[in-house]
Amino acid sequence: MRFFSDNAARVHPQVMAAIAAADVLDTAYAGDAWSKQLDARLSALFETEVAVLWVPTGTAANCLALAALCPPHGGIVCHRDAHIQNDEGGAPEFYTHGAKLFLAEGNGAKMTPDTIRGVIDAIANDVHRVQPHAISITNATEYGRVYTVAEVAAIGALARTRGLGLHMDGARFANAVAHLGCSPADITWRAGVDALSFGFVKNGAMSAEALVFFKPELAAVTQYRRKRAGLLLSKGRYLAAQILAMLDDDLWIANGRAANAAAAKLAAAGGDRVIHAVEANEVFLRATPEEAATLRARGFDFYDWAEGEIRLVTAWDSPAEAVDALADAIAAL
Amino acid sequence: MRFFSDNAARVHPQVMAAIAAADVLDTAYAGDAWSKQLDARLSALFETEVAVLWVPTGTAANCLALAALCPPHGGIVCHRDAHIQNDEGGAPEFYTHGAKLFLAEGNGAKMTPDTIRGVIDAIANDVHRVQPHAISITNATEYGRVYTVAEVAAIGALARTRGLGLHMDGARFANAVAHLGCSPADITWRAGVDALSFGFVKNGAMSAEALVFFKPELAAVTQYRRKRAGLLLSKGRYLAAQILAMLDDDLWIANGRAANAAAAKLAAAGGDRVIHAVEANEVFLRATPEEAATLRARGFDFYDWAEGEIRLVTAWDSPAEAVDALADAIAAL
Amino acid sequence: MRFFSDNAARVHPQVMAAIAAADVLDTAYAGDAWSKQLDARLSALFETEVAVLWVPTGTAANCLALAALCPPHGGIVCHRDAHIQNDEGGAPEFYTHGAKLFLAEGNGAKMTPDTIRGVIDAIANDVHRVQPHAISITNATEYGRVYTVAEVAAIGALARTRGLGLHMDGARFANAVAHLGCSPADITWRAGVDALSFGFVKNGAMSAEALVFFKPELAAVTQYRRKRAGLLLSKGRYLAAQILAMLDDDLWIANGRAANAAAAKLAAAGGDRVIHAVEANEVFLRATPEEAATLRARGFDFYDWAEGEIRLVTAWDSPAEAVDALADAIAAL
Amino acid sequence: MRFFSDNAARVHPQVMAAIAAADVLDTAYAGDAWSKQLDARLSALFETEVAVLWVPTGTAANCLALAALCPPHGGIVCHRDAHIQNDEGGAPEFYTHGAKLFLAEGNGAKMTPDTIRGVIDAIANDVHRVQPHAISITNATEYGRVYTVAEVAAIGALARTRGLGLHMDGARFANAVAHLGCSPADITWRAGVDALSFGFVKNGAMSAEALVFFKPELAAVTQYRRKRAGLLLSKGRYLAAQILAMLDDDLWIANGRAANAAAAKLAAAGGDRVIHAVEANEVFLRATPEEAATLRARGFDFYDWAEGEIRLVTAWDSPAEAVDALADAIAAL
Repeated sequence: MRFFSDNAARVHPQVMAAIAAADVLDTAYAGDAWSKQLDARLSALFETEVAVLWVPTGTAANCLALAALCPPHGGIVCHRDAHIQNDEGGAPEFYTHGAKLFLAEGNGAKMTPDTIRGVIDAIANDVHRVQPHAISITNATEYGRVYTVAEVAAIGALARTRGLGLHMDGARFANAVAHLGCSPADITWRAGVDALSFGFVKNGAMSAEALVFFKPELAAVTQYRRKRAGLLLSKGRYLAAQILAMLDDDLWIANGRAANAAAAKLAAAGGDRVIHAVEANEVFLRATPEEAATLRARGFDFYDWAEGEIRLVTAWDSPAEAVDALADAIAAL
Repeated sequence: MRFFSDNAARVHPQVMAAIAAADVLDTAYAGDAWSKQLDARLSALFETEVAVLWVPTGTAANCLALAALCPPHGGIVCHRDAHIQNDEGGAPEFYTHGAKLFLAEGNGAKMTPDTIRGVIDAIANDVHRVQPHAISITNATEYGRVYTVAEVAAIGALARTRGLGLHMDGARFANAVAHLGCSPADITWRAGVDALSFGFVKNGAMSAEALVFFKPELAAVTQYRRKRAGLLLSKGRYLAAQILAMLDDDLWIANGRAANAAAAKLAAAGGDRVIHAVEANEVFLRATPEEAATLRARGFDFYDWAEGEIRLVTAWDSPAEAVDALADAIAAL
Repeated sequence: MRFFSDNAARVHPQVMAAIAAADVLDTAYAGDAWSKQLDARLSALFETEVAVLWVPTGTAANCLALAALCPPHGGIVCHRDAHIQNDEGGAPEFYTHGAKLFLAEGNGAKMTPDTIRGVIDAIANDVHRVQPHAISITNATEYGRVYTVAEVAAIGALARTRGLGLHMDGARFANAVAHLGCSPADITWRAGVDALSFGFVKNGAMSAEALVFFKPELAAVTQYRRKRAGLLLSKGRYLAAQILAMLDDDLWIANGRAANAAAAKLAAAGGDRVIHAVEANEVFLRATPEEAATLRARGFDFYDWAEGEIRLVTAWDSPAEAVDALADAIAAL
Repeated sequence: MRFFSDNAARVHPQVMAAIAAADVLDTAYAGDAWSKQLDARLSALFETEVAVLWVPTGTAANCLALAALCPPHGGIVCHRDAHIQNDEGGAPEFYTHGAKLFLAEGNGAKMTPDTIRGVIDAIANDVHRVQPHAISITNATEYGRVYTVAEVAAIGALARTRGLGLHMDGARFANAVAHLGCSPADITWRAGVDALSFGFVKNGAMSAEALVFFKPELAAVTQYRRKRAGLLLSKGRYLAAQILAMLDDDLWIANGRAANAAAAKLAAAGGDRVIHAVEANEVFLRATPEEAATLRARGFDFYDWAEGEIRLVTAWDSPAEAVDALADAIAAL
């Protein structure tokens, strides 16, 4: 029973069906009937005009966004534990041609205006120092915490004041929105976000993420960069179809809710062991190596996060019996 | 009836079935059961030990290969009409961090040792000139011509003599091998090829190409580069499964033969109109604008290549009736 | 007697004196009293507000200019024989992060609006093709030819029409202006030039070139790029002082005239041997290997350009006796 | 009286004389008689075969060294306060094409094997994490501390064990060696250093630093990178001559001693105010804003480092009277 990560979960049947339905001849690249719907469909969802590019990975979405917001000689403020800093193999540096990541602090991988200000105020405004050009936040964060609308808006206000772009890594955007119960618009552009990596792969898609620009002019140049990065698949319809299927009937939010609910069960069982408030689909628990071994012996697979800590991740398709069984096992520790 | 390109063709049913069959939970990235088979399966096909990386596009395969063979300050000799020069939006320069493409001549987009030598001998061996480090050939070429085993071997010998790496862009490798009737080994590593972009997307796959390294040590560093380029899909099993399905029962070669056969019909109908010997699945014909319009009026869709020239591309799934109808229409011009 | 190149000529005594005079403690980098004068001094010379950065090499000036005018995913049209294409070791690709050079034709390394149009009109306007963003011309050219004011203006008009930036590599700008007898303004910004590499090193300076931006906002971002490239010398006053000395009493133009006059003598002696009209300080002559050997036997040092061609370069300090002796020797061939 | 930095100090008369003496016609770039002596002269100094490239700035030396030791997808461990991290405008990222700097701790900007190990042991060995490829230390450090031979050797041993390259930023190498009284060999290659940025500009030169490779094969590829970065000045003899003059009669070490002695005087006057042990030519003192103002009122110019801290830097030419006066003023605070 796998609680290792949501990134290897199965593909939702409706997504698989949409892929099969896209198996007709159409125009290559992003000229097909499916890809052409993305702007309108996501503009409707976000209640404003957006420009959207599909890409096959979240890393690609993140880094194309960063490249749109930060020149090669600039820098990007992100949390010390951000995925772009630790888990993308240097892709931000590759896509931006060497921009620097400035690392800020914050509980649960959440930065605050204060911790961001602490970083950028320490940077003298001269040519010897790399100057910050953008901020990147992850929602839900790498620790399963969720920035509220007010929290994002406060960072957005800071970004505007300092002339910085604002990117949101939404690899688990569905989980964040499901938790908040807000509109996607409120947590993004209305709060000052310029570009969103709208994640679907962890939430039921196979190989499609949406890079959403709330400043459509940023998408124009990014079209060239997507191609230049070898990311413009010739049969783009199979990617666009996945995204459209995830949007149909709000499947994305339903899947996010399902994963969150499973995590909530585990959190409840975890009680005092819970390290970070469980607001999305990740559960970090204090557990001795022996306790971890006990859980594994019962057939549960998960990640040893740090000494004395384990990480459990639920997904849209976490089987109810497995979740219940794991909750029981945790409670029994 | 679409003869515009093979890059938007449908997905072969066996590939689609393999994708569906991969829809089980497994390890992420390239750690799954499907991805782990690639090295062995392709080593068997190529009769030598190879190291293989799946990637979602041919551009990605080509450019990761070039980056493995050429440092940022070096250069790569390719044909003036090569896909890497004209159709990848600058991806070779992106992936290599600015290596220069040196353009050589040759009929039908085929370079020869002489045209390559002409380019590299003109480059003084000093720090002021970018020095060549690799050669890239396309087989079948952008004009549907096929390098023979002897022709590749001659270029391979030149590459070895000059200390250059040799890359083969095999976006239409299946069509080339189907035409040649040779073993995959003969036309690649035995002829001096270091890295092959083994194309499947134009030949029945959905979103998977295989980057095959005949020097496995090049794959080790490329693993990092693939990740850094945002190309390491988390659900890699769906890509690996496509490649495995294409290899099963030699589907890849069967599909290549089918596309070639369709092109041969069109070529026969074209007669004297044929510009480049039709050896793969592309047919370039002389046709006046009026003649092109006549064909279009009959429902055929294709590319105007240059003034007075049209390009017809067949695919593994070109309907026999459509091919026959087009052949008749061409003959009737 | 050396006619190999002007790039190793001596330093003019007034420049050397200026360097010695700058040997006082002052602010580092570009904050010193000398550096601060550059904008005003060159604005006066160019009769418009310019922003100027000193750099230690012409390659640095050229490539910072190109990076200011062209994004990483764009391209730059230049002559097939341009210094940026052939003699800068890939620096344009390094500084622009991989922009592509598109090569145009033209006699004497001079492009024309037609040859430029031929290149850019062949580039389809889609994401698969690298799009042109700038044009770079060299004046005087690599063959010692000079673009007239009207010729530059015609290219400038084309650049404006197509939305392209225009850079002038003026490694031998002094020779060009000396030949034309025009104002520096006429041959640059009034003709549509956005950025000029104003060369001094070949003309009597030791290690200082001026990168002149006619759109001062381009200088702002280039300040960061200059630092990032390791080009911001801490003792910048020694570079700025060189440029100021070259501007004093129009030393730069006097030196250009001296070199041109020496070349004119050689050209007159060369008669029918002259390959490219001698308009600056370079003389290309037809000469058999035996004739070249004869000249060398008499103590003249020069470059074998191509089969049956030699290149003679004069400098501001070419000794009159050496020039006369060489002219005699050429006439005597 | 300027104690702001050593980076704007005057040029030593012997260096200026050497520049004047180089004012003869010679071969361009690095082919002149002066440049050709560098390898031998520095091989003698370092008691082993080294390969040397002159460059105009310390940033260029550092970043060419890093690019030789670390691929674009790799990382470099340096101190959190290292010049390459904070004061080079992102040049390391530019030259390495986006390698990542990993920041380690340590008093006085000195890392230890433990603090380095802490950084690299936290990096999982997989493709998702940028892998460390090199270590860069600064000697003397940014706080005027000096790594001993044993300390460098311990880091060198760690580097070897982990397969990492080792670079030493020796912008103030002379001050370090003057302090240690060791041989240059002991503190560099014998202790495991692969590449040294041997600084002269802060120590009496005008515009020349030596990049010394103890693995000469690294110099071969760096020759190309130096050119590609626009750093290969055509009149290289004026740079090489500076370095040779600094080596003559051990001028470099004499100058280092002079600067250190001046700093020692200030340190003695500072007493308990001294923050970092004064081992080179930098003095960090605790001083209230009022105290700083008092010193400034007496005509002393220096840098406010942090709240309640000032930085005083001496140079080879700090006038004895000025140093004594400042020492008195400090003592009188």
